[in-house]
Amino acid sequence: MTISSPLEYSLGELTEALGGEVVGDPSIKVQRVGTLENASLDSITFLTNDRFIHLLPRTRAGAVILSPLHRDATALPRIVCRNPYAYFARVSALLNPAIFTVPGVHASVSIAASAVIGARVSIGPNVVLGENVHLADGVVIGANCCVGNGTTLGNETRLYPNVTIYQGCRIGSRCILHSGAVIGADGFGIAIEDGRWVKVPQVGRVVVGDDVEVGANTTIDRGAIDDTVIEDGVKLDNLIQVAHNVHIGAHTAIAACTGIAGSVRIGRRCRIGGAVGIAGHLSITDDVEISAKTFITKSITESGIYSGGYPFEPNRAWRRNAAQIRHLDMLVKTVKHLEKRLAEIERKLP
Amino acid sequence: MTISSPLEYSLGELTEALGGEVVGDPSIKVQRVGTLENASLDSITFLTNDRFIHLLPRTRAGAVILSPLHRDATALPRIVCRNPYAYFARVSALLNPAIFTVPGVHASVSIAASAVIGARVSIGPNVVLGENVHLADGVVIGANCCVGNGTTLGNETRLYPNVTIYQGCRIGSRCILHSGAVIGADGFGIAIEDGRWVKVPQVGRVVVGDDVEVGANTTIDRGAIDDTVIEDGVKLDNLIQVAHNVHIGAHTAIAACTGIAGSVRIGRRCRIGGAVGIAGHLSITDDVEISAKTFITKSITESGIYSGGYPFEPNRAWRRNAAQIRHLDMLVKTVKHLEKRLAEIERKLP
Amino acid sequence: MTISSPLEYSLGELTEALGGEVVGDPSIKVQRVGTLENASLDSITFLTNDRFIHLLPRTRAGAVILSPLHRDATALPRIVCRNPYAYFARVSALLNPAIFTVPGVHASVSIAASAVIGARVSIGPNVVLGENVHLADGVVIGANCCVGNGTTLGNETRLYPNVTIYQGCRIGSRCILHSGAVIGADGFGIAIEDGRWVKVPQVGRVVVGDDVEVGANTTIDRGAIDDTVIEDGVKLDNLIQVAHNVHIGAHTAIAACTGIAGSVRIGRRCRIGGAVGIAGHLSITDDVEISAKTFITKSITESGIYSGGYPFEPNRAWRRNAAQIRHLDMLVKTVKHLEKRLAEIERKLP
Repeated sequence: MTISSPLEYSLGELTEALGGEVVGDPSIKVQRVGTLENASLDSITFLTNDRFIHLLPRTRAGAVILSPLHRDATALPRIVCRNPYAYFARVSALLNPAIFTVPGVHASVSIAASAVIGARVSIGPNVVLGENVHLADGVVIGANCCVGNGTTLGNETRLYPNVTIYQGCRIGSRCILHSGAVIGADGFGIAIEDGRWVKVPQVGRVVVGDDVEVGANTTIDRGAIDDTVIEDGVKLDNLIQVAHNVHIGAHTAIAACTGIAGSVRIGRRCRIGGAVGIAGHLSITDDVEISAKTFITKSITESGIYSGGYPFEPNRAWRRNAAQIRHLDMLVKTVKHLEKRLAEIERKLP
Repeated sequence: MTISSPLEYSLGELTEALGGEVVGDPSIKVQRVGTLENASLDSITFLTNDRFIHLLPRTRAGAVILSPLHRDATALPRIVCRNPYAYFARVSALLNPAIFTVPGVHASVSIAASAVIGARVSIGPNVVLGENVHLADGVVIGANCCVGNGTTLGNETRLYPNVTIYQGCRIGSRCILHSGAVIGADGFGIAIEDGRWVKVPQVGRVVVGDDVEVGANTTIDRGAIDDTVIEDGVKLDNLIQVAHNVHIGAHTAIAACTGIAGSVRIGRRCRIGGAVGIAGHLSITDDVEISAKTFITKSITESGIYSGGYPFEPNRAWRRNAAQIRHLDMLVKTVKHLEKRLAEIERKLP
Repeated sequence: MTISSPLEYSLGELTEALGGEVVGDPSIKVQRVGTLENASLDSITFLTNDRFIHLLPRTRAGAVILSPLHRDATALPRIVCRNPYAYFARVSALLNPAIFTVPGVHASVSIAASAVIGARVSIGPNVVLGENVHLADGVVIGANCCVGNGTTLGNETRLYPNVTIYQGCRIGSRCILHSGAVIGADGFGIAIEDGRWVKVPQVGRVVVGDDVEVGANTTIDRGAIDDTVIEDGVKLDNLIQVAHNVHIGAHTAIAACTGIAGSVRIGRRCRIGGAVGIAGHLSITDDVEISAKTFITKSITESGIYSGGYPFEPNRAWRRNAAQIRHLDMLVKTVKHLEKRLAEIERKLP
């Protein structure tokens, strides 16, 4: 089994397929992608950022993808293009096509009689599909996945092994769900009554658009009454919690370990860092960037970058400084009082 | 497959079953629950909070559940009751009964000969039950679940697909465990010896009471020596870590992404927000509320609300303010010094 | 089924096997381990810390493991040794040997014809092994695990049920992977192009050394181009995110809910607390300790303890103090201005 593919492309073939300009010999062939540090002669690498330009003279790559700005930063054969990182992604996709999965249904599956299975579908061992599940053409279901009654999956959507989708959900086309993801579990709806919790049935669905990727062990809860909605092109990293009735706008990307509380509405094209928390019922407008570890406690109505991480320090310094936070309000009062006393003195003096 | 049930109840039937008072026509029938915004004429909605009262005039719901305080806030047929949210939960449970699962054991299961299976038990495809597992009456085990040797599950307890329970654990009655939950994995017990870690065998169990709900991908580790204990009525959201030998008191609810370190003792009826961290070996008394993202570093001996989130800001403002935290102790010293100098001047002046 | 083993050892047998010195009757036999509070007469307990010494007079244990410092702190039969906690770990391992798993391959597995299976391997129900998987001698694979094409597992490595390992990964010898762990899912590599995300194929592997333990529902992503590397003896707790191309040095231990962003390099023998976040592309040197809930935003080049948790308080005090953080930079300016005005006055006064 090889991870890298035995395919090869010349630089000329690449620019023909993907645009950009070859500088140097267009017949140079590449077989794999590599980092500036570790690429070999059969590899193509890329430069996106001045931060890594010092690595360029030392690379052993056969060719480089870079921007017009860095056109003359190397004598290696190269492809000059507007967006080297996206270009590199497309080159890598050509050199590393998705591992071919033989269409077919493994003998060990449990599929309800009412399930509808499209063309070219691949279903791995021990998969369980409930009543009225619909799989569109080209769907791939990894081993040991469970898909609940009435759930639908769009064209070419792929589930890696051990994904669970509860009943009644809709997943769009070309989605990728990684192992351990749980879609459509009950939202955390509980009502207090005489000191005990009464479960609020969660009768909404999870509705996921097209081209969405969901990371390993990420959870997206079904809506309490209305649906939880993930729009097209959203990218979710691992171990993210999306609570009931959250709505995430198209092309928003969220890094790992972030938790989004119930009924939060996030706009389009947002970029949310890792381990962010967003309190319930807030709205975040389009094009907002939130730094890692930030805790969002109010709605955000203007696009921009928002942050809230506490600065780390050597433990001893942290102890001293953090202890003062508990007296910060008092310190402000002290300073105000000093100001008054000082003004008083200044008044008295000539 | 329908998510909402075809059942219907008149307002009169509801108050007969659940208490409360009908204002308006008691023969009005409802078939489903709805939000104020999205309810249809066949739906019953609810109002708990003045914050949402502006939505009431626009609702298309057929009926509303509300408190005596809001009795006259609408002309719609309505049920007036003390606790509209809990009442709504009960109405929703009537309209959305748990999906009926046909009792029976799927042909693909692997069940040890010594396992004891109660009446009306439903066991899905590919389930694996170890030696001496006991399932009480009415237990439902979703597809692809694994239950380790000697573990017992009480009456009517339900495991959604892909739940793992290790050996020797006890789960009470009427519990709900969502997909990806892992109960009884080894606690993080390691001892350092000559620069390497030695594993400390984790020989305690996880003991879970009745009416406990465990969210998707939540982990509850077995005790190192004594047991990890979750008392009756505890509700845990998704992606929560409960470390070895934690003890959680009855009717405590904990939101997603919270991490509870080893040997923490949490009281009864606590409400713990999302992404909270609780450091090891602490005690938290009954009726404590902890806001989301708070880091608890000392035991809490008085009930009340505790918080510790860092305020977020636009990135530029955050940079300026956070930078000063590293000088906070110095600032306090500067202010004290100013006070002294000022007092000195005041003494000199008339 | 018993969790504790029916084995028994005399104190003399223990010191013969593990070193240390018996004080008291070496023929005293112990059958199980216990805590100071809950041990019974057939149990051996341990004391590591003055903090728990008040429990010693009340223990009902049959014997105690303690350090030379506490040699005379009890009259009970005891073993005196340099490192009581590690000693206790070894005694517990003797008394609680890993549950014996019958070698053999369950009838329900799906194993590719090209897979290579070593001696004394145990493979549970519904396990799926891809093409060219190699399992070394003594490997144990719990029920419902999936191992992707070309992945190799070293001697005596154990997967608990429901573990997923993607294609092309290498796991060393004597590793333990707990349920729900996902190894080798795609890293979060996306490039923006005309407002949409393009997936960057993740073609690196996950390479895990020997004696590594991975907690329940922890995720370790495959490298984007080069590999993600976990060196020997690393211990990872539950619900940890290890992003693509992270490198974790030997014998580092990381507590639950921590998130490590892409390309971070962590040194050897580090101890990282729970819910820590480490921003991308940083380096952390050897022997660094990071307190729980800290957010690391710069590389750490000197060993030591680093912290950054925000102090919690009763909600009302927190509100007052946290509100001032948004004015901290302004406060510093005010204080500087006061200093100037004060110096001016001091200059004028005699």
